[in-house]
Order: sequence, then structure tokens, then C-alpha cells
Amino acid sequence: MKKKILTGDRPSGKLHLGHYIGSLQNRVKLQNEFEQYVMIADVQALTDNFENPSKITENVFEVAKDYLSVGIDPEVTTILIQSQIPEISELTVYYLNLVTLGRLERNPTVKSEIQQKGYDDSIPAGFFCYPVSQAADITIFQAEIVPVGEDQIPMIEQTNEIVRRFNRIYAVDYLKECRAVLSKSPRLVGIDGKAKASKSLGNAIFLSDTAQEIKNKVFQMYTDPGHIKISTPGRVEGNVVFTYLDAFHPNTEEVNDLKIHYQRGGLGDTTIKNILNEVLQDFLDPIREKRAKYTEEYISFVLKCGTLKARSVALKTIEQVRKAIGVNYF
Amino acid sequence: MKKKILTGDRPSGKLHLGHYIGSLQNRVKLQNEFEQYVMIADVQALTDNFENPSKITENVFEVAKDYLSVGIDPEVTTILIQSQIPEISELTVYYLNLVTLGRLERNPTVKSEIQQKGYDDSIPAGFFCYPVSQAADITIFQAEIVPVGEDQIPMIEQTNEIVRRFNRIYAVDYLKECRAVLSKSPRLVGIDGKAKASKSLGNAIFLSDTAQEIKNKVFQMYTDPGHIKISTPGRVEGNVVFTYLDAFHPNTEEVNDLKIHYQRGGLGDTTIKNILNEVLQDFLDPIREKRAKYTEEYISFVLKCGTLKARSVALKTIEQVRKAIGVNYF
Repeated sequence: MKKKILTGDRPSGKLHLGHYIGSLQNRVKLQNEFEQYVMIADVQALTDNFENPSKITENVFEVAKDYLSVGIDPEVTTILIQSQIPEISELTVYYLNLVTLGRLERNPTVKSEIQQKGYDDSIPAGFFCYPVSQAADITIFQAEIVPVGEDQIPMIEQTNEIVRRFNRIYAVDYLKECRAVLSKSPRLVGIDGKAKASKSLGNAIFLSDTAQEIKNKVFQMYTDPGHIKISTPGRVEGNVVFTYLDAFHPNTEEVNDLKIHYQRGGLGDTTIKNILNEVLQDFLDPIREKRAKYTEEYISFVLKCGTLKARSVALKTIEQVRKAIGVNYF
Repeated sequence: MKKKILTGDRPSGKLHLGHYIGSLQNRVKLQNEFEQYVMIADVQALTDNFENPSKITENVFEVAKDYLSVGIDPEVTTILIQSQIPEISELTVYYLNLVTLGRLERNPTVKSEIQQKGYDDSIPAGFFCYPVSQAADITIFQAEIVPVGEDQIPMIEQTNEIVRRFNRIYAVDYLKECRAVLSKSPRLVGIDGKAKASKSLGNAIFLSDTAQEIKNKVFQMYTDPGHIKISTPGRVEGNVVFTYLDAFHPNTEEVNDLKIHYQRGGLGDTTIKNILNEVLQDFLDPIREKRAKYTEEYISFVLKCGTLKARSVALKTIEQVRKAIGVNYF
């Protein structure tokens, strides 16, 4: 039997090349090796967007389109919407008993996110508790493998603590511990070169960008500010164009030749940007074309089927949980 | 249309005379005036009993028997089990976004309960968050009236804060604010005269006690420790026998005559205890007889029907909530 893997995204915007490098390409690979569940985590995204829910809810179908357009195959991967599996909330409520306030306060991921968001004394309880909800996400599908970034490792530890505590208190072995699998790909930098590509920073190339948008973004890319004349040597490190060529150019040797030429002098930014533009257009053209063909009806059908399948798994887990606690009266 | 009223009990033990005086008799009266929901709050009881769930789950049917035996009529009152309405958990998860940690920390009821329980730094998150879960209980049934003790008023305020915040953020008016109705009956003291009657203090007479158990408890009752000889005057204030006579004797004048006689001297404790014993046997005999006739099948049927009816109301509310937030994709 294939092991289950759970991944997903907060649907706070359309997906971009950073997502592709960081997770989507991996999911396309893993979907045949594992029983893969990809969750569109709208409930989690609402914990810090509850005052503006349409930002989240309007992106659920968009994210699903992004998934399909890069090759996540709904025939083998189960794509589900978190809010449509209410058993996750039920499990969260039972898990909240197994975690102390102090333990949640010490969670480094939540701690640093609280600082970033500047919540100060007005931390929403839902946001504060989201590691518990995440434990419910993972375990309700009996996922054993969870691909994460390094900052998410405390979440996996929290999940496994809950699993061990649940199994011990209720004398069962039904819930499975999970293993974090770190992504090998480094985070893709934004076109400004300053931080990782992200929607909120406005420095990302989206999977759904038009040819013109892609070209504009490529030509805005940060290169080497010291490389003013074509003839002078240019720097490759920190040069976003080369970072993207490394990530997306199908031919590594050609990229190496370009790097040598650029460092030697004589290769202009316009030339390398034109090359990158061509590479990205070649990469994104078929994705955009595929994406444009999905009707709302089709996406709705895919999400309904995936959610239905996921829910049947969730129901099996919650029935075991209810039985373990003893709240199965009828 | 009748207004909805929500009441209930944590099923941490069988119900006793303190429950009868404090709430059950009132429910019997109110059930024809209002659309009454009586919730057996097992999920809430688990927040501080999660390590010993059978203490809770084994009492769910017992509490239901207690309800029926005192005259709560399942034909007019909806008796439901909290855990069987998972929509309450779903609503709780959405409500958690609308409450800050600081607000929960300032809740006086939770604050004093945390001290009582000696949780110190290991407060379970589920216990800490139970006011939010209570807001979900009340509002999912659109209850407008909630009979409470004085110590529960902050819970009603918290509920109404959540309701107003939800309605404002999501621009709806679907959720209803509720009104606390304070019980007029004073708390029934335990047979030891020290504190209110409670299972954990072992000072309560249960609705299901046998005739012999009742008699034993009456004869253990605290009276007036200074009243050693029958002939000397005795004190009525703080005398548990008179407190119970006041609460359960059908004839107030007779009780007044007894009080005068006792205070004058010449009325022995054995005599008044025999009178109280007779009064309580008369009161509890038919309750115990009725109680003994309920089969597990019948109780199961009553709870299934009540829960089913309650769930259909809960589903209507949660559908409106999902629509308001926008998580109604299909």
C-alpha cells in the first residue's frame, strides 16, 4: 500500500513560479509514488484573513486551476477544500484538549508569525491555535509524509506530540505519526532580488501571467547594478536573471556558458533577459493555455470529487476517534 | 413563533436535588412556554475530563434518564448530545478567529475556574477556549434565552460580542444575540451544610438514590450542633433539614409551624429528619420508579430523535454561516 502524503496551499492568491519550484514540481513527481492529498487550506488562510474572506474564497478555484495546469493529475492526486471537510474541525476541538496554552505560546513558527503580523495583544485565538488545526489536517488523512519548509518543522513536532498523547490517553494506536520531508529546492527569489517571490511583495511571476506580463517582469529583474556597460564583467551571484535561468532553462551547459561570458564581459543584460524571457514563455505558454481551457464546471467537478474522496477517509478517522474517546453512543 | 431557549448540563455524573432546584424544575415549567433545547454537553465536559472520558460518556444516558424522570417531556423539549452535532465544532473554529487571546484571558469565569483547578501553566487550550465553543452552542440553535447562574453571565457577554462581530464583519444579521435569564432559586446546600450540593463533594442526594440511600443522607444532615437536648431551642438558619423542608415540603404553613416549634425547643432532630425523609421519599419515589422503567433502547431513541432535530436546526445555521463567509463553493 502506498503511503499517504499531505501537502497544500493557503489560497490567498494565484500560484507563481516560487510555488512551482518550491512545491508544485515535486508534487507532480510524487503523485505516482505516493497516495497524494493536496489541500486547499481555506480555513487556515481565514485565520489571518477572516476580515476579508473573499480574498481567500475567490482564490480557491484559481489555485485548483494552477494545480491542474502544471500537471497535478486529479486522477491520481486527491485535491480537496479544507472547509468542506467539517470533520477536521471536530478533530481540532478534541485535539485542543491535548495541547496546553504554554506549548502553543512556545511554538517558534507561530511566535515569529505573530511578530511579523504585529498582532501585539490582539492575537486572534484561531490564528494562535492553527498548529492544532494543522495536526488535525495531517492526521485525519493518516498522512505519514508531509513536505515542508524548514520553518514548518515545529508544526510537525507539534502534530506528533498530539498523536502520541492521543494514542496514550485513549489507549489506541490508530493515529499515525508523520515525517517532515524538507524540500531540496531553495526558495525562489523575487524579481526584485530582495526576498522570496511572493504575491504580497508584488515580485512574483504567476503561472497565469500573460506573455506580456512575463516579459515586463523579466525586463524589471534585478541583475548586477555595477554592470553598466556591456563590455565590463558582470556578477552572476545575486543576479536574478541567472537564478531564474538556473531554475528554468532546460540546458545547464548553455546556462554555464552564459555565466562565463557574462562574468568575462561582453554579454548585455538585455540579451540575457531576452533569453530568460524565451525560456519562461516556453515554460509558461502551455501551462497558461491548459489553464484557460478549464471551465468553472470542470474545476467544480474536480474539487467535488477530490473533497468527497478525502471526506470518506476523514470520516473513517473521525469514527475511530469518536470510538476511542467514547462519544459513539448510537 | 416561540422563542428558543438553550440549557443543559455537563454529564459528569447523575443529577441530584441541587440540579432539580436550580434548573430542572424550571425546565419543566418553561418547556411549554418556549421552544426548549436541552444539551448534554459532553464535548464541553471533556475539556477538563479528557484524560478520563468514560466519566463523561457513561453518564450521558444517565443524565437523559434524569431529565425524563422529572418531567422533561421529549415530545416538547429537544434533548440533544453535543458531540453528535459536529457543526458546533465547525462554528467554533470560525468563531475562534473573532476572539483574541487577551479577551479569553480576561474572561472572569474561566479565570476563576483555572485557579480552582490549579492548572498553573498547563492550561489545556480546549478548556481555555470553551467560552467560544459555548457561543457556538447557543447561536447554532439560534437560542435567544439562556438560563444561567450569575457566574455564567460573562459567557453570555462573550457570546453576544462574537455575534455582533460576526454580523458586522460578514454583513449579515442572521446570528441572534441572546439574553441571560438568572435563576431565581438559591443554590441548594449539600447535606453537610458546607457548600452547594455536588457530586464531587459527596454531599448530594441523587434523583436516582434508593429509599435507603435517601434516608441515610437525611440522617447525616447537618442541623444545629448546639441543639443537644430536644427540650432546648434549636437554630433554623443554616440547618440543612429546614433548608430542604423549605425546598421540598408541599405545605409552607406546616414548615413554618415546625420552625417555630424547633426554635422554641421541644422538637428533636430525629423528628424533623423523619418528616423530611418522608417528604423526600414522597417526592423521589415516583421519579425513581419512572426512571427505572426507561430501557436503554428508549433513551437511545429519545436522544437520537432530539439530536436529529437539533442537528437539522444546526445545519440551517451553519449553511448561513458558510454562505456569509463565502465557503459555499458548490
